[in-house]
Parts: sequence; C-alpha cells; structure tokens
Amino acid sequence: MKIGFVGLGAMGLPMAKRLMAQGHSVLGYDVSERNRTAFEAAGGLWQTTAAGVTQGVDVLWLMVVSGDQAQDFLLTQGHADTLPGGATVILGCTQPASQAAATAQALQAKGLHMLDAPVSGGVVGAESGTLSIMVGGPSATLDSVRPLLMAVGGNVFHMGQACGMGSTMKMVNQLLCGVHIAVAAEALHLAENAGLDLQQVLDIIGVSAGNSWMVGNRGPRMIQSDPPVTSAIDIFVKDLSIVSDEARKLKTGLPLANGALQMFLATSGQGHGKADDSQVIRAYRSMNRKG
Amino acid sequence: MKIGFVGLGAMGLPMAKRLMAQGHSVLGYDVSERNRTAFEAAGGLWQTTAAGVTQGVDVLWLMVVSGDQAQDFLLTQGHADTLPGGATVILGCTQPASQAAATAQALQAKGLHMLDAPVSGGVVGAESGTLSIMVGGPSATLDSVRPLLMAVGGNVFHMGQACGMGSTMKMVNQLLCGVHIAVAAEALHLAENAGLDLQQVLDIIGVSAGNSWMVGNRGPRMIQSDPPVTSAIDIFVKDLSIVSDEARKLKTGLPLANGALQMFLATSGQGHGKADDSQVIRAYRSMNRKG
Repeated sequence: MKIGFVGLGAMGLPMAKRLMAQGHSVLGYDVSERNRTAFEAAGGLWQTTAAGVTQGVDVLWLMVVSGDQAQDFLLTQGHADTLPGGATVILGCTQPASQAAATAQALQAKGLHMLDAPVSGGVVGAESGTLSIMVGGPSATLDSVRPLLMAVGGNVFHMGQACGMGSTMKMVNQLLCGVHIAVAAEALHLAENAGLDLQQVLDIIGVSAGNSWMVGNRGPRMIQSDPPVTSAIDIFVKDLSIVSDEARKLKTGLPLANGALQMFLATSGQGHGKADDSQVIRAYRSMNRKG
Repeated sequence: MKIGFVGLGAMGLPMAKRLMAQGHSVLGYDVSERNRTAFEAAGGLWQTTAAGVTQGVDVLWLMVVSGDQAQDFLLTQGHADTLPGGATVILGCTQPASQAAATAQALQAKGLHMLDAPVSGGVVGAESGTLSIMVGGPSATLDSVRPLLMAVGGNVFHMGQACGMGSTMKMVNQLLCGVHIAVAAEALHLAENAGLDLQQVLDIIGVSAGNSWMVGNRGPRMIQSDPPVTSAIDIFVKDLSIVSDEARKLKTGLPLANGALQMFLATSGQGHGKADDSQVIRAYRSMNRKG
C-alpha cells in the first residue's frame, strides 16, 4: 500500500520505520525537518509540501499532537480534498472522542473513510513495535488496514463501529494513568512528611497491593529533584482536561480525575509544565509547605 | 519461645499455625470460640481466659481488629500488667501511627517492649506465609523476635526505631490501595456511561500503563452486580479514615485520598458497608444516575 504519513516526531518516526520494514511505501511530511535524515535513511520518501503525502495514497496516517492539528491539516487547510476518493485516514492522535466523531463525519461527506486509532505504549512501544492501538470505526475499514496497524503494534483493539470509541478507551486509560501518577506523588509526599525513607517506601509498594504500573515507572523519578523528562506535566494537563471535558458532556461527575487534574494544573502554573510528569509532587510540596 | 496469641480470626489463625509449624509453643485466646477446634488441631493451647495468654510468655502477639481493641485489652482491661517484665508485645493490627506510639509509651512505662508490626497480604498471604510485615520499633527488639516474624511472612521491613513507623508505612500503602480501587470504579463508570464494553476495557487496561494491582484484583468483581466479599467497603472507610486523620495531625492536605474516602463513605451510607469493596462503583452510579 501507498501510505502518506504526517507527523514524524518521537512517535511517528519509529511507526513509519516499522511500516517501511514491512515493505510499505511511505511518503512522509512534517512541519519540522528535524527527523528527515533518519526517515530517509530508513527508505522514506520525504515530501516538502503537505500535498505530497495526500495525492495518490491509499492511506493517510496522522500522528500529530492533537485533534485540533488534525482538523487544521485535513479540513481548514483542506488537504483532505486532495486525497483520492475512498482513501482511509487513520487518526493516531490523542483527542476528545467528540472531536474524532466530528472529523469522521466531515471526511465521510468527502467520500473518505476514517479510523479513530489512538495508541498507548509511548516512545518505547513505538520503537519496539508493541504499541496498543484502540480503534473506533467500521469493521470493514479496520479490516482493510489491519496489516498496517499490526505492523506498528501487536495489540489492536476494536472498541466499536463509531469513530470516537477508540478515543473513549484511550481517555479511560489516561484517566487511570493521570490519577495513578498524582496519587503516587500524594502517597510519597505523605511518606516524606511522616519521616519515612522514600526509596524503602517504593521498594515495599512494589511488592504490595498498593502497586501500579505508574508507581513503578514514575516513582523512582518522583524522588529525584530534577529527573529527565520522559513525558511532561503539560501532557497530563491536556489528557486529563480531555477526560474532564468529555465527562462534562456525558454529565458524569469524576471527583478523582478532576482532583488529579488540579494538581497537574497547579504544577504547570508554578512554571513546571515542561518538567517530567513525576514532578506533580512539587504541587503537593508547595501546597503543604512548612513555615 | 513461649508465645501468647490474641485474635485467632481469618488472619490470626493461619499466622499462629505457621508459628507452631516452626516448633513454637502458642497459647491462644479469642473472645469468639469459632476457630478453637482448628487451632487445637494444629497443636495450639487454647486459653479460656485472657490471663492465660499473658502469664509466663516471652512474646504476646495481638492480631485484633483495631488499635482501640489492642489498647482495651492491654491497658483498660490491664492484661499488660500480668506479662513478665521484659516481654515483647507485637501489635499486628492496622491502627493510626499515633495510637501505636501511645501504646508503646504506656507499655515501656511497665517495663515491656513493643513492636508496631502491621501486615499486608491479606488472608491469602497469611495462609501461605508470605505476608509483608512493616515494623516500627528498636532494632534490638526486632532482632529478638525476627525468627517469629519470618515464620509468618518472608518480607520483614524495618521502617524505623520508633513504634508507629510500621503503621505509617501501612497507611501509605492503604492510601494507594483505597484510591486505586475508587479510581478503577471511576474509570469503569465513565467507560459504561460512554458505551464501552467493560470486560474489553479491563482486558486492555491489564496490558496498559493504566494498570494497577487493584484494577486486576477488584476490576472483575466491579463489573459483577453482587460479587463475593473478599474485603468489605467499611474496611476502607476505616483505613482511609486513618489516613485522613493522621494526615490532619501532620497538617498535610491529601485531596485524592480524601476524595476516595468520600466515595467509600457514601457507599457505606447507602447501606452497602458489608458489600465487597469493589462495589464503591455503586456510589458513582447513584451519584450520576440518569432520570
């Protein structure tokens, strides 16, 4: 298949490379030329204009940062209009389910197919080809591109026939991720205020019922004062805001998710939005500062 | 060693049996005679009065339900006064750190030693001898009874020289457990309101970054309408209340732990206090009930 790929960043580049490794022809475009050399070295056909990745392709895959960027590219800039009729657009970004559904409706009106296909697993998963892909959209559309999805991740979950169901599943997972990071910070902050040794606390939690994937992953960086950034505070400001906004549309009160959002928001407000998300512990420390 | 053991319930009985299996002589007492036969069959010496488990013992181990029960037995009823001078009291109950510290001070004034030694791992851990024991108290006291602690659980963690540090660690773990159960309910409730298949959601979370020990353990019972009770709602009303009260003494605001407590409290208030703690999802359902 001939694939157009937009967004060759930390996630998109390794995904495009896996598609090429399976023998697919990939035309790539990104507003930044940062990864051009690596993409071309893997056999990718770099396009200097957006039009280059839409004309004549079977599939257009977008790994941009947000649903807003996707709508801007496809609809506002109008690049969807240069796709061949019957082409399939795969939207890999994390976005509100309602936005994925709206984009799908607009593309359908242009005679195009769409899959709502956010991913989970991060840069590590993208590089190892082990991403989980949560798909919302018609079964026939999914079946037509399933080999492409399988090339980038072993786990393809079909959540429902409606575009938006993939994003809904991702939102449920992000709710858990965000609250688990914030509560790990809350627990470690209580532990430090109570005089416990934080490394020992992490060792014990790791073999106890209080364990979570996030405690294991973020906990060690939480007890460093300035750890490397693997995912920024502002990513969870964004993801938990999606949770909060979408749940408001569903008239569903979510006390813990919204409580966690406030802590990420406060951390960002203190100027730490680009810090590693483990540093949400800074909001706890300043909130409960002594003296 | 000659050991007195008070509280031969679901946790205490299997612990006492493991001590006997290691060749220790165990004198047992419980206000309920329910487990007397099983205890005696394992070689235990059942005592019909509390005085029987204190006179002449090296160690008195309490696996009662609360710190209040422990204080009542030791101090109000005065059974600590019949222990030999220099005996060691092991307090295995979940209690506020401040209460463990107060009991230790009272026992010390009577010439007795104490270890604050709450456990984690539940009935399954007690029966398999794999409990985690979080110990607060002097190293010398711990060393004198370490073989007994090792007999009931492979993981003995020394948290500090002060009685109360074991309870503090247990509280940090319970904070995580309680919030993880409540947020699992919150996430599944959002998923059901958004039209996802809950079994599929659990399958995906189990292989995603949103996973926690509690999602895996409680999640399946959360999507049953009337599951078997493995641990009741009111246990987390109690444990998260300890977190809330102790943190108040430390002047440490804990938004997520207190938010989760409200959901367990509301579930109990609806008359479901004896239900399985996975049923905290009922409070979400009634809070966001349609029509």
